[in-house]
Amino acid sequence: MQDNAKIEEVLSTLDKGLPQALDRLMEFLRIPSISTDPAHKGDVRRAAEWLCAELTSLGFDASVRDTPGHPMVVAHSPKGDRRALLFYGHYDVQPVDPLTLWDRPPFEPEIQDTPAGKVIRARGAADDKGQLMTFVEAFRAWKEVHGSLPTDLVLLFEGEEESGSPSLRPFLRENAAELRAGIAMICDTSMYADGRPAITTQLRGLYGEEITVRAADRDLHSGSFGGLAANPIQILVNALSTVKDSNGRITLPGFYDGVEELSNELRSDWEDLGFDPTEFLSRVGLKHPIGEQGRTGLEMVWNQPTFEINGITGGYTGEGFKTVLPAEASAKVSFRLTGAQDPEAIRETFRAHIRAALPADCTVEFHGHGASPASRMDISDPAFAAAKSALSDEWNREAAFIGAGGSIPIAGDFKELLGMDSMLIGFGRDDDRIHSPNEKYDLTSVAKGARSWARILAALN
Amino acid sequence: MQDNAKIEEVLSTLDKGLPQALDRLMEFLRIPSISTDPAHKGDVRRAAEWLCAELTSLGFDASVRDTPGHPMVVAHSPKGDRRALLFYGHYDVQPVDPLTLWDRPPFEPEIQDTPAGKVIRARGAADDKGQLMTFVEAFRAWKEVHGSLPTDLVLLFEGEEESGSPSLRPFLRENAAELRAGIAMICDTSMYADGRPAITTQLRGLYGEEITVRAADRDLHSGSFGGLAANPIQILVNALSTVKDSNGRITLPGFYDGVEELSNELRSDWEDLGFDPTEFLSRVGLKHPIGEQGRTGLEMVWNQPTFEINGITGGYTGEGFKTVLPAEASAKVSFRLTGAQDPEAIRETFRAHIRAALPADCTVEFHGHGASPASRMDISDPAFAAAKSALSDEWNREAAFIGAGGSIPIAGDFKELLGMDSMLIGFGRDDDRIHSPNEKYDLTSVAKGARSWARILAALN
Repeated sequence: MQDNAKIEEVLSTLDKGLPQALDRLMEFLRIPSISTDPAHKGDVRRAAEWLCAELTSLGFDASVRDTPGHPMVVAHSPKGDRRALLFYGHYDVQPVDPLTLWDRPPFEPEIQDTPAGKVIRARGAADDKGQLMTFVEAFRAWKEVHGSLPTDLVLLFEGEEESGSPSLRPFLRENAAELRAGIAMICDTSMYADGRPAITTQLRGLYGEEITVRAADRDLHSGSFGGLAANPIQILVNALSTVKDSNGRITLPGFYDGVEELSNELRSDWEDLGFDPTEFLSRVGLKHPIGEQGRTGLEMVWNQPTFEINGITGGYTGEGFKTVLPAEASAKVSFRLTGAQDPEAIRETFRAHIRAALPADCTVEFHGHGASPASRMDISDPAFAAAKSALSDEWNREAAFIGAGGSIPIAGDFKELLGMDSMLIGFGRDDDRIHSPNEKYDLTSVAKGARSWARILAALN
Repeated sequence: MQDNAKIEEVLSTLDKGLPQALDRLMEFLRIPSISTDPAHKGDVRRAAEWLCAELTSLGFDASVRDTPGHPMVVAHSPKGDRRALLFYGHYDVQPVDPLTLWDRPPFEPEIQDTPAGKVIRARGAADDKGQLMTFVEAFRAWKEVHGSLPTDLVLLFEGEEESGSPSLRPFLRENAAELRAGIAMICDTSMYADGRPAITTQLRGLYGEEITVRAADRDLHSGSFGGLAANPIQILVNALSTVKDSNGRITLPGFYDGVEELSNELRSDWEDLGFDPTEFLSRVGLKHPIGEQGRTGLEMVWNQPTFEINGITGGYTGEGFKTVLPAEASAKVSFRLTGAQDPEAIRETFRAHIRAALPADCTVEFHGHGASPASRMDISDPAFAAAKSALSDEWNREAAFIGAGGSIPIAGDFKELLGMDSMLIGFGRDDDRIHSPNEKYDLTSVAKGARSWARILAALN
């Protein structure tokens, strides 16, 4: 642990250097590094090179590493005898269309006053350039005060996060020995509602499936065949209606194997968040939670598995009416998974459920989409308590361990390929408009985000 | 009743005059009276005028009657003291595209030899110009032999049958007194399989409904809301899965009110047809009838009501995958109705069933499509037995009373607006390719169709 005087010196260095930190962030934001658009391929590389130069100037051993797609930036601080920390961020950004909905050019960042405080407005301000610069600025201030970087840091920056990360897993596999650390710090998430600092410690997994049920070898007229011939829409509808019972509980045999009840520690943290499911649903025009009876709202979205029909189509769906019995019908469904649920076992059980619903002369074709288990971090690792305490000190509010209902593939990839847990700590806000026109990042997040990392670095040193 | 010698004379007159009858039909077929295509508006009128001139030359009091759409042709034979007979046909035809799939120009009819006998090939050959000319030729031969037309005939020809008959019901209403007859003869259907002569005596009704279920006021991400927010696809699927039970029986309360068991007479006729549902389904790649247990195949398609989902759509249905909870989902469904089932009562019951499946904060919008009861002819009317006997004599096979699984709106319109039953007698074949390229009509149907009408006229005179 560092002594308190040194920490305070790093924090005040950050405060004094904020104008320069903002200048650097604005320079970074001016590079239109849109990874999905081939026209911006050169810009994406330019952003990687900008970042590499920054890190080199701070004393990192940094390099731009080619992949079949956009490059990675990897940087190392000097070796020491500490438990290594890997920091992850991505320097590519989302496309900007529709451009007409932006108040200003998306790659000409500006500091603006808003009723809720100052913000920096540009594409990538929050996702993820502004966020990744919070830890880069923390390293800079640390070096200024201590004369050297913290030892045993590994930095990994990706340029394909907004286009599906096709090169990431091969890169992690090929460079596992170089990249493996004690724990990963991922700075690409938001704070909990109302700006409460939080560490995401569990993420639901996902298993998706496309189902196509076929009956007759052509579309039939319901006047000639209705009542006699099987209707694949009805077969599909019947099969999908019995995956959940009337209490919202999934009926597939063995489905809940591996689902774990919430620990008392997390239950207490989550209750303390004061989540009101009715208020949350009211923002989208709803009122009534439909999850399993007896579960809290946060359990429903973070700790309970789900079954959802994401799309369905069959027969005539245009204007007017057609009395057709279609030849086929299909649906896309997905399960969110928790605890130690096994996606492959559930895939088999689900497919068997659909097959059992087929009349003798109908067929089904499956097309699987992804199958990743849930991520659960080992919060008994003392690094979690230390980081939580550091965040609480900075924000003057008790930080919380929270869950996430969606998947963040990078956390699963780090676990699977490098064997390390992740701490997901970010300073975004719900209203940052990431992926939308007029993206912004609060200046509070810029300033206190960097200070948070300085405190975490001190706590873990 | 006519004496036998006179009947035989009419029949041999028809046989001798077949070449001229074919010439007249070919002339009629050369008029491209496509009612859906505004470019053919003049051709449609030309077909009406051609028909009117033919009928006038036979001694009918015939006229082309304007409507807001294409004209009607109405013709009367001299008044007498017989029970009046109304004959119905339509002189418009389907579009011809794709033209490349035709073996020859669709409006240049030709007599062709096929392995199954001679056919006349052209658009409208079977649907319905060839069919309606069978009774016109019967009237011509009758007049030639008797010196005068049969009395008390009303002829009604429509030019909008292939484009939804928008002018028909107003025209029937406005001219009810003029058009009302003892019974209607509709010549626009096929014989039973293998060319067995048949009279269709019952048609299923139809009630269609479009259902849109709405939940959140926007599409939601299943990572953030899955497990908490209602999914309108699931709600719709659940509601549609419970309309039928596992035996294929519809569960809506009171749904079967008015459904009638088959009379012994019809049951015997239908059994005698030797319908094999497994063979029938095998033509479209299926084997297993899915109707209510304990029913014969023909009961399932002709005498039992059905519920079918004709189309369903919701959420993401493009390539790949999207973990969305959509804001809405919709389906198009229809019920085929039999006996005295009341479409309006069933509409109310079905809508109540859907509403009962909605969570408190979801909504549903309905959009009704048609609601017509089943048509059941009173086969105790001696005209049915007389026509059946006449058909059996001509084809040297026992004619059958059959049902139809689909609706033929004209029969319901005649019943509702003019208070008369219909006999649906036609000489089409399953392989006539109506509505498709290379439409044809068998020369056997041309010749024996006209002879059939001559016998029926004699039997009912």
